[in-house]
Amino acid sequence: MTHLRAHVLGAAAGGGLPQWNCGCRNCCAARDGTIPAASQSSVAFSANGSDWAVLNASPDIRYQIAASPPLHPTGPRESPIRSVVLTNGDIDHVVGLLTLREKQTFRLYMTSAIAEVLDENPIFRALDPKFVTREIVALGQNVEIADGLFAEMFVVPGKVPLYMEGETVDTELEGEQTVGVSLRAGDKQAFYLPGCAKVTEALADRMTGAELVFFDGTVWENEEMIRLGVGAKTGARMGHMSMAGERGSMAAFEPLGVARKIFVHMNNTNPVFDPTSPERKQVEASGWEVAFDGMEVEL
Amino acid sequence: MTHLRAHVLGAAAGGGLPQWNCGCRNCCAARDGTIPAASQSSVAFSANGSDWAVLNASPDIRYQIAASPPLHPTGPRESPIRSVVLTNGDIDHVVGLLTLREKQTFRLYMTSAIAEVLDENPIFRALDPKFVTREIVALGQNVEIADGLFAEMFVVPGKVPLYMEGETVDTELEGEQTVGVSLRAGDKQAFYLPGCAKVTEALADRMTGAELVFFDGTVWENEEMIRLGVGAKTGARMGHMSMAGERGSMAAFEPLGVARKIFVHMNNTNPVFDPTSPERKQVEASGWEVAFDGMEVEL
Repeated sequence: MTHLRAHVLGAAAGGGLPQWNCGCRNCCAARDGTIPAASQSSVAFSANGSDWAVLNASPDIRYQIAASPPLHPTGPRESPIRSVVLTNGDIDHVVGLLTLREKQTFRLYMTSAIAEVLDENPIFRALDPKFVTREIVALGQNVEIADGLFAEMFVVPGKVPLYMEGETVDTELEGEQTVGVSLRAGDKQAFYLPGCAKVTEALADRMTGAELVFFDGTVWENEEMIRLGVGAKTGARMGHMSMAGERGSMAAFEPLGVARKIFVHMNNTNPVFDPTSPERKQVEASGWEVAFDGMEVEL
Repeated sequence: MTHLRAHVLGAAAGGGLPQWNCGCRNCCAARDGTIPAASQSSVAFSANGSDWAVLNASPDIRYQIAASPPLHPTGPRESPIRSVVLTNGDIDHVVGLLTLREKQTFRLYMTSAIAEVLDENPIFRALDPKFVTREIVALGQNVEIADGLFAEMFVVPGKVPLYMEGETVDTELEGEQTVGVSLRAGDKQAFYLPGCAKVTEALADRMTGAELVFFDGTVWENEEMIRLGVGAKTGARMGHMSMAGERGSMAAFEPLGVARKIFVHMNNTNPVFDPTSPERKQVEASGWEVAFDGMEVEL
């Protein structure tokens, strides 16, 4: 029987928990072991438990693989990772590609807009095309990303990567820069959206009645980083909707009847990282789960 | 009194130990805990114990900082890391810069040849020049890289980064592509050379009588990777001299009278990673030490 398995490699947003230069409450608590640490945004999916696709290659991927026995090498230089799928060109989602550079065969799936970002950086030539085949995927196209595991990318409001921003930035751009992914194995389906600026009507329709959704949990509230004195940007400016509030993701998903809703890509400032926080309790009371490194989900 | 302190952040070469896709004896032993794991090439230096310079920014830097209390943040968004110094443009030495991107002030020291490599990759714009100042250093120039800590770069035979290689490659190029660094604090001096294709006469003169040298320990013998069936390249082709043999580094340093000689940047295939191996015993019998993550040295 076909299953759809998800293995959360990293539950945190860019920077991770703890972030190298951050002394916020969560980062200090993660350093002293009061709350669990979390590595950067990535989830591995499989239909058979032996062939895996990694959605987004985080800078922490070497440690993430080392901590995940199903992803360990199966020979002298051999990996069960068949493909990497990118949902945008952000640093926390592409830098791990530079770790996967050791003459190892796998497929790299992405939109042409994301491929252009890689092409502009010769450092990604480290992925030798003799081993790593780049597959440009159109929105709506169905591709087999690992044995029995199919993916389709769809548009999600977002923005271009920070390092490609110009003078003005559209933070709710709907194009190929930021995508969500539908994953199917047999009759099982899951959605993965680590970055989303807004739940549009089309997106709400797509998610309605879903069995499993991994969704952008970057910030609890829009002004969180400013309030904590660690940054000048709102969640919206970073291209992420907040969890709480009338315009937040919890409210947006309330009427959609999704069976299992899991927040991923939490910024280190997000109070839900603390299992004892009132915000965490509120999230759980709303029927959501908060992902953690090593979390396993099976449909 | 001034001290010169070195804190080894990562003792392994590119790929680390274990490497994501490697099932060699060392990588398997590191995964099952039989031998200590090692992260990728980086050493932090300080003259006062509170201001630090990091020599090479490895892809593992987030974990390396988390494991090193002297490098933990000292405020909400504040770091004791005053500078990063690059000895070449290799992936294992520059990718960590993309982790140090969080609006944190520090100085980045490198030759103009290495700066050009970064400039060709827009992804490094993630290091906002409002916070990270790029200091182009000439060979032989003396710069203060952290409070009371001075550095001078000098030429070392090596090659351009793999991802910048053309049709033909000079593996003993002597230019600004690969450098060694002399570090001084008061009357103490150390040398750091994580990559070196050959001990030339000029290099031998420079090292003679030194108190402390960290030196390229990539491979035990030139054909090691081929023999183990994990690669097609010799050490020499990668721009690294081997430890053993008549033309190896142990023989080259024998007559130089260096007080403390420490191998760094070991490839995961190097048998000296196993503390019980005959090669490790031979290295130690020759008066060398093998660096490990967290190793501290003080002059």
